[in-house]
Amino acid sequence: MFQRLTLIGAGLIGSSIARVARERRDLAAEVVVTDRSAAVLDRVAALGFADRIEPDTARAAVGADCVMLCAPVGTYAAIAAAVAPHLAPCAIVTDVGSTKVSVIRDVGPLLPPDVHFVPAHPLAGTEYSGPDAGFSTLFEGRWCLLTPPDGTSPAATERVAEFWRRAGSMVELMEAVHHDRVVAVVSHLPHLIAFTICSTADDLATEGESAAASRSEVLKFAASGFRDFTRIASSDPVMWRDVFLNNREALLEMLARFTEDTQAMARAVRWGDAAYIEDRIGRGRQIRRGLIEAKQA
Amino acid sequence: MFQRLTLIGAGLIGSSIARVARERRDLAAEVVVTDRSAAVLDRVAALGFADRIEPDTARAAVGADCVMLCAPVGTYAAIAAAVAPHLAPCAIVTDVGSTKVSVIRDVGPLLPPDVHFVPAHPLAGTEYSGPDAGFSTLFEGRWCLLTPPDGTSPAATERVAEFWRRAGSMVELMEAVHHDRVVAVVSHLPHLIAFTICSTADDLATEGESAAASRSEVLKFAASGFRDFTRIASSDPVMWRDVFLNNREALLEMLARFTEDTQAMARAVRWGDAAYIEDRIGRGRQIRRGLIEAKQA
Repeated sequence: MFQRLTLIGAGLIGSSIARVARERRDLAAEVVVTDRSAAVLDRVAALGFADRIEPDTARAAVGADCVMLCAPVGTYAAIAAAVAPHLAPCAIVTDVGSTKVSVIRDVGPLLPPDVHFVPAHPLAGTEYSGPDAGFSTLFEGRWCLLTPPDGTSPAATERVAEFWRRAGSMVELMEAVHHDRVVAVVSHLPHLIAFTICSTADDLATEGESAAASRSEVLKFAASGFRDFTRIASSDPVMWRDVFLNNREALLEMLARFTEDTQAMARAVRWGDAAYIEDRIGRGRQIRRGLIEAKQA
Repeated sequence: MFQRLTLIGAGLIGSSIARVARERRDLAAEVVVTDRSAAVLDRVAALGFADRIEPDTARAAVGADCVMLCAPVGTYAAIAAAVAPHLAPCAIVTDVGSTKVSVIRDVGPLLPPDVHFVPAHPLAGTEYSGPDAGFSTLFEGRWCLLTPPDGTSPAATERVAEFWRRAGSMVELMEAVHHDRVVAVVSHLPHLIAFTICSTADDLATEGESAAASRSEVLKFAASGFRDFTRIASSDPVMWRDVFLNNREALLEMLARFTEDTQAMARAVRWGDAAYIEDRIGRGRQIRRGLIEAKQA
């Protein structure tokens, strides 16, 4: 697919891409890895999944026919500014960020006109992070959403799509604004809520004598439902902070709807509106059934 | 342990108790099962885990040395009224409900003075319900909380505790008010939130053309975080409706705290308060680490 693939960022996603590219040599002949953390690059060297390690971002991009941004989306503008003067003509720049409108806004204007920009978002991950957490099968059977802006070369888009297909993913094209709203519903809002309920419980547990539940009680009895939230709440804080800040409008809209709905539930609990509560609970079952039928559960 | 154990309600929990009692004959010599649903009793007969099936609640309690309420907590007062005149002297009445203050309030005053009342709450379950969903190892390694009111016979409490230990559980005694606050944090609030986010997503998906995400998109991309919520949101609606209505004060208090925290997160997202967001996200990781250390994850 590519002669030289440069990965900027070697966390869970970047290191998984490097691993799958090394396993299947039809993705990239050479994999160059850079990361702004020297400690991460030391681990990359030890783990041995890069053909070349290059600490300097700009130099890493030199001669690459594909440069893939695999860092938190808040760092994209600075990365794009650093690599732009060094990009080869006709090189493809792509990324793996969870927000797409902000990425197009931050990266697009900085790239030279003879470079192809194909924003992408593999819907894959685990609650772990860093170069040790990656694995080559992370993308298998998962969706990868591409949001090429108007005017993007169809051939470049197809190359990125084919790259992800060979990595095991199913690819779908989507308009960036729509992408950001879809992921706000299925991913960003659930993560924000999971982070919040964990921090609410943590606050409660620190109240000492008067606490509703001590920390040890929260940990001991977590299996009663709370535990399901802690798994997704253990994801990388910097990555998620940047996602929330860069999908602000869609996330706040979904959060406002969710808050209205929790308030309506609170009112129903207070006033004993059994039918309302049962109806809302019933929706969860319906969605779960849909997932089971769609074999996504 | 008991000569005749009568289970009132043969859903996930009741049918699991019947199964473990049949497997380990040192729990009960005879297991009598009743349920207000004839269809459920037909399944109980087909599944064969009851020594005797008795459609009439009052008759089922006759001659039992232990009567265990395994129905939604909203039905407890009616069940207690029905069985009270038929209870054997010195019989133990216990239950498996997720709320304990309401159970003591609803059941306690209706029982004859020569009967022992030992409220219990096994912290065990799955997202499935009904007599087919039960299995004999459901309680293994799980907590069972007992909340005997002041003046309860210690010998009766110990018998119920020993019953649960033999079923595989770890037993802890707790004051009922404290129990209700602890489970509001670790179980009731997480369930209410999971139900709510699923119904919020369901509403969004029904908005047609203008929808942020269509139903098929929610189902397709659910693996990005949303899916984790749907599992716990597929639990039994009637059971959970009753739990919410019967732990109203503690649940509303926890929900108010959680809502404050989501609003603070919303404000931080709107105003770009990166440090605040990162700090709150970090709490989730901390709790998850605590769970892993406590081997509860």
